[in-house]
Amino acid sequence: MKQALTYTFFLISLFLPVTSILAEEEQPITKPVPLSEETQVCILCHRNYTPGIVEDWLNSRHAKITPDAALEKPELERRISNDSVPEPLRSVAVGCYECHTRNPSAHEDNFEHFGFNINVIVSPNDCKTCHPVEVNEYSVSKKAYALENLQKNPLYHSFVETIMGLKEVKGTEITHLPASESSKAEACYACHGTRITVDGMKTISTETGDILVPNLLNWPNHGVGRINPDGSRGSCTPCHPRHSFSIEVARKPYTCSQCHLEPDVPAFEVYRESKHGNIFFSSGHEWNWDPVPWIIGKDFKVPTCATCHNSLLVTPAGKTVVQRTHDFGARLWVRIFGFVYSHPQPKDGRTYLIKNKDGLALPTAFDGEPASEYLIDENEQVRRKTEMKKICKNCHNTDWADKYYTKFETTLNETDKMVLSSTKLMFKAWKEGWADISNPFDEMIEHKWMTQWFFYANSIRFASAMSGPDYATFKNGWWELTTNLYELQDLVQSKESKE
Amino acid sequence: MKQALTYTFFLISLFLPVTSILAEEEQPITKPVPLSEETQVCILCHRNYTPGIVEDWLNSRHAKITPDAALEKPELERRISNDSVPEPLRSVAVGCYECHTRNPSAHEDNFEHFGFNINVIVSPNDCKTCHPVEVNEYSVSKKAYALENLQKNPLYHSFVETIMGLKEVKGTEITHLPASESSKAEACYACHGTRITVDGMKTISTETGDILVPNLLNWPNHGVGRINPDGSRGSCTPCHPRHSFSIEVARKPYTCSQCHLEPDVPAFEVYRESKHGNIFFSSGHEWNWDPVPWIIGKDFKVPTCATCHNSLLVTPAGKTVVQRTHDFGARLWVRIFGFVYSHPQPKDGRTYLIKNKDGLALPTAFDGEPASEYLIDENEQVRRKTEMKKICKNCHNTDWADKYYTKFETTLNETDKMVLSSTKLMFKAWKEGWADISNPFDEMIEHKWMTQWFFYANSIRFASAMSGPDYATFKNGWWELTTNLYELQDLVQSKESKE
Amino acid sequence: MKQALTYTFFLISLFLPVTSILAEEEQPITKPVPLSEETQVCILCHRNYTPGIVEDWLNSRHAKITPDAALEKPELERRISNDSVPEPLRSVAVGCYECHTRNPSAHEDNFEHFGFNINVIVSPNDCKTCHPVEVNEYSVSKKAYALENLQKNPLYHSFVETIMGLKEVKGTEITHLPASESSKAEACYACHGTRITVDGMKTISTETGDILVPNLLNWPNHGVGRINPDGSRGSCTPCHPRHSFSIEVARKPYTCSQCHLEPDVPAFEVYRESKHGNIFFSSGHEWNWDPVPWIIGKDFKVPTCATCHNSLLVTPAGKTVVQRTHDFGARLWVRIFGFVYSHPQPKDGRTYLIKNKDGLALPTAFDGEPASEYLIDENEQVRRKTEMKKICKNCHNTDWADKYYTKFETTLNETDKMVLSSTKLMFKAWKEGWADISNPFDEMIEHKWMTQWFFYANSIRFASAMSGPDYATFKNGWWELTTNLYELQDLVQSKESKE
Repeated sequence: MKQALTYTFFLISLFLPVTSILAEEEQPITKPVPLSEETQVCILCHRNYTPGIVEDWLNSRHAKITPDAALEKPELERRISNDSVPEPLRSVAVGCYECHTRNPSAHEDNFEHFGFNINVIVSPNDCKTCHPVEVNEYSVSKKAYALENLQKNPLYHSFVETIMGLKEVKGTEITHLPASESSKAEACYACHGTRITVDGMKTISTETGDILVPNLLNWPNHGVGRINPDGSRGSCTPCHPRHSFSIEVARKPYTCSQCHLEPDVPAFEVYRESKHGNIFFSSGHEWNWDPVPWIIGKDFKVPTCATCHNSLLVTPAGKTVVQRTHDFGARLWVRIFGFVYSHPQPKDGRTYLIKNKDGLALPTAFDGEPASEYLIDENEQVRRKTEMKKICKNCHNTDWADKYYTKFETTLNETDKMVLSSTKLMFKAWKEGWADISNPFDEMIEHKWMTQWFFYANSIRFASAMSGPDYATFKNGWWELTTNLYELQDLVQSKESKE
Repeated sequence: MKQALTYTFFLISLFLPVTSILAEEEQPITKPVPLSEETQVCILCHRNYTPGIVEDWLNSRHAKITPDAALEKPELERRISNDSVPEPLRSVAVGCYECHTRNPSAHEDNFEHFGFNINVIVSPNDCKTCHPVEVNEYSVSKKAYALENLQKNPLYHSFVETIMGLKEVKGTEITHLPASESSKAEACYACHGTRITVDGMKTISTETGDILVPNLLNWPNHGVGRINPDGSRGSCTPCHPRHSFSIEVARKPYTCSQCHLEPDVPAFEVYRESKHGNIFFSSGHEWNWDPVPWIIGKDFKVPTCATCHNSLLVTPAGKTVVQRTHDFGARLWVRIFGFVYSHPQPKDGRTYLIKNKDGLALPTAFDGEPASEYLIDENEQVRRKTEMKKICKNCHNTDWADKYYTKFETTLNETDKMVLSSTKLMFKAWKEGWADISNPFDEMIEHKWMTQWFFYANSIRFASAMSGPDYATFKNGWWELTTNLYELQDLVQSKESKE
Repeated sequence: MKQALTYTFFLISLFLPVTSILAEEEQPITKPVPLSEETQVCILCHRNYTPGIVEDWLNSRHAKITPDAALEKPELERRISNDSVPEPLRSVAVGCYECHTRNPSAHEDNFEHFGFNINVIVSPNDCKTCHPVEVNEYSVSKKAYALENLQKNPLYHSFVETIMGLKEVKGTEITHLPASESSKAEACYACHGTRITVDGMKTISTETGDILVPNLLNWPNHGVGRINPDGSRGSCTPCHPRHSFSIEVARKPYTCSQCHLEPDVPAFEVYRESKHGNIFFSSGHEWNWDPVPWIIGKDFKVPTCATCHNSLLVTPAGKTVVQRTHDFGARLWVRIFGFVYSHPQPKDGRTYLIKNKDGLALPTAFDGEPASEYLIDENEQVRRKTEMKKICKNCHNTDWADKYYTKFETTLNETDKMVLSSTKLMFKAWKEGWADISNPFDEMIEHKWMTQWFFYANSIRFASAMSGPDYATFKNGWWELTTNLYELQDLVQSKESKE
């Protein structure tokens, strides 16, 4: 590596000092920020080979401030949560070399690259060097276990395999084949994450000639529950996309909308048609998206997803309203995404550990009975509800907020009852042998039933939670819930009439 | 109240003069604007308890201009339509106290709040103090009657109750229960409005301790046909959201898109894929959204919803093209939202007064015959069409516009014929006893039929009116209209074959 | 015409010099740009009669630069591709008269208008005066033949007529009528284009009195495959909307989203939920949308549709990455919009020339066999893939890009297999007489089959190509592909059981 550095310094002196370019092009936040010698070398090549990400990084906060300078800020303004960032990172910009060489022994994807030992993937465990509070919060959340919760829950696993697997037809019969890793990676696992492993090294042809790189399997991916080659869980880039790692992007609903979309999780669509969304889309371009802390009414006029679910908020007078959290369920008391009913939030991010009374890894039984010992209790629900309501009350009076939450509870109750009605028809079909419960996801009639809770009941709950009327009404709302119930009934009755 | 004021002046002198804060923070439109003593008191507390709305208001035009100053503007630039705003409102900003204390004797929700008698809800009748022309226009429109048109029309009422009501299942049979006020409030009535009544007083726990407030039923709500505790109809906030009351927001399509969405009223989606929408989304951030009057080509490049349906428009040379109207149907000659056919606009905003030849409160009979005496005549249709075309012709030549309108007429005709074809199948089913017309909305086959006119025929008409090709074609357009007709036929024929 | 000019000069001197207005209002790109005398006359009237388009043009580049000045720019910065623009166009702004009077003898729509001989429609052949390279590229693309590819392919023609035609019902039988030109013009042909012909002259009433104009049929329209009254194919305005002809608009995805929308071509929706879309929607308002060439990382942070499919891209160091092309398929190796399977791109824009082994004008047979002689070969596919990958590699490393493309190939393979499974069920139905293949688009069961490939398989492929997970999963993805296969099977089996 020393050799490479010497060679590079020669190159630098020959061409141009990268740091001075920086100083010219970018208005530094504090003062010109030194880049490590190693990062200067990275940039020297990658400015030619992947200029897009270099430019992106040059505009990022990481390029414009050192950890030392970041730690000088008042506590409430800090974006860094480790008081003791190790040398030699403290006094240089957070550059290529600084991030891509953390914890090399843990990284199966570490390899020698033009004289440097580099990790291909920067994992949350690497980001933890400067951001330990955020990573620790995230690492116990449902997001961190998004992949394992799919794979280790036999029912969810079967669901994924049934939907994503190839189907072959002979005559009028369908044969189910297993789902490919490739297709799962761009569908379910695109959001939930893949397990990235290293299958030795391989040679690839690049513009600079053949180079030897680790052969990563199930890569590329930036799902929230990704399992990384260092064994860590999760990914920071779905919300803070590389290489700008922008807080502005993370705070905008377009980020959440990568995954939280209809028909199963219509959070973005409901937000869009809400009064909050109306105002965000109309005037959000005038707000301040970067400040930490984020000032209610000054920096932004209405909440985005981040406001209610994870940001540190203060009033214009400087009073802290809620703390920042990177466990995005921390302020949630109920889980409205029902599989198959709504229910109190699970106590643990690892939902595959849940057992309901029928032995299935589901938070409720098919008849609606909750697996209570795995779910947060009434006290914790009240605590979280109170926390969330604090945010509402910066613009809405207490009575307004109370009534809003009461309405929401009624909706949970009613949609659960509608799901129960559908499930009774399904039970009848299973009991009478008109459908086969051994795989509850592989028949037409079962899909009618699933659609009820997976799409329509969920939509109405999201519409209630965030005030999007169309998703409670005609767009996947009560209209569809009712129509589809009639259709499910028709299917069951047609089976009945053939008896 | 005097006592409270004295106490408050002490507080003000102790802490900070709100008016001077204002002067510092905001560039006033004319000069520093005095706040009434009462509004200063409101702000003093609410800056702590609901800072978001205080900040929102501080940025609003209401905080930056007095009615007196507003009335000094040239007539075409005025946003205020009452020459004789009463004292003491004339010479202070339009603040909390000014709006929340209008017409107290009419307000069932008026209550004593820290020494002030306050209305919880500011109704259109209160806004009328300064904006009488706008409120009067609105109050006779279909929007003002949006709730009553649902509730007083037996057929619409039955439609709402059938769709929104809980359904219980025993065996394979469905029992229909009535819909809850709660669910209707967040679905149909979220757009149409609720009837807000006051059920005595109640104590609520707030940050400042227990306080006594009116117990409002069916609140919160900001539907366009809301019936307020002062008996007035409607709400200004769906389009001019509190507490900025922004004209910019009202002029952007995101506002209309809170309610005018697919699958029933795909106005926003059609606009989005139209050439107008293409240009708005690409360059709208560069336009002038605030000026009154709104100058074609200077302030904006293509129309938004507001441009064609309600704004006061002038040419760059200063010629008035169309007047402002807050009766949003005033420039419309035909109603393309067919229940069940398209038809001339109703003469009266109270559509529940209509009787068709079969005695139903529908603008057309199920066979298509219009209830002509309740609908505007040919002359009035021509007058409105001419008015609307004036707007088109600021960018399109006469022949272009004429052809456009002719195409639209053809589409109305063809979609009505397609609805008739579907209705003939439904009539057959009702006549033969394969379905029961006593409630035309509660059977699977009826939902197939409803989908034809409620979603697909409507979509094609909206797509034609505003040039969104996908909604005329594959997305809820002719493709679905045809597919669904085949499915309806299949259902009817399968009943037939069982005879 | 001379007489008209004299009269107009009088008017000009009487009122105001348009050129000086221009100089005041607009910051010219170089220096005040002279307008031709004729264009000044146009503007003098049209400022009153169609002020919107005049303002639009005044803000356009066409109003601010002469061809001579445009040709002085360094080659890479040029937006004009003809070194020898003819006099007298060279030294005046590109105004009304300059564009609307090109090639008059070819224009059936040329007519005498207040002393000038004007073409109503400016065609690509007219734009070719200054932009020949772009027009030539476009004119051999699939876009230029978008209309003829629908009309001259008997199968596509039958598809359009079946879907768009009126259906009458007698008893429970459906009679199919031919589709009207009017409805096709606002559905299929709104994107594909109409054939605009001139049916003599007619008198229309305008604000200036009765005037005589050509009677254009199938107008207005701005579909990409429009056939113009001068015999040329295509239209530049769908992407560069008149009269700003903005490159900014063309580069934004809202432009492509006029036509490339779900359910058949969900390019825009997939982009919106991709990481690229996430970043574009969050920070695109800060980018530079106008520069030519377009600098990766400097002007924009992530690609839009234009970036990958047609723009001239350079690195910050000035190296050209890819050339501009207005044949939007030029960098595409595979056609993912399967009718009915994905397949290599056709060699020729005129896809109606293709014959598959069954004699149908389809790139694959119903059993999946490609009509290879009409499609590009392996070498050409590799060449194009390499070209496209060059763009990816400005931000992604070689291995990342390689793996991405491999995943995409797997998806094409799997979705084609799923389509084959559905088609086998359909073949069974046709063979057994449960459906009639003579028109494969006019029965309920056939629509189930079509939905598989036309919507769901396509969605998954688009989702794979541009990383939009929801469109591979629940939103028209594998969930729907599987559910619909079960429904198709159910239909076929119910026919079987009736035997």
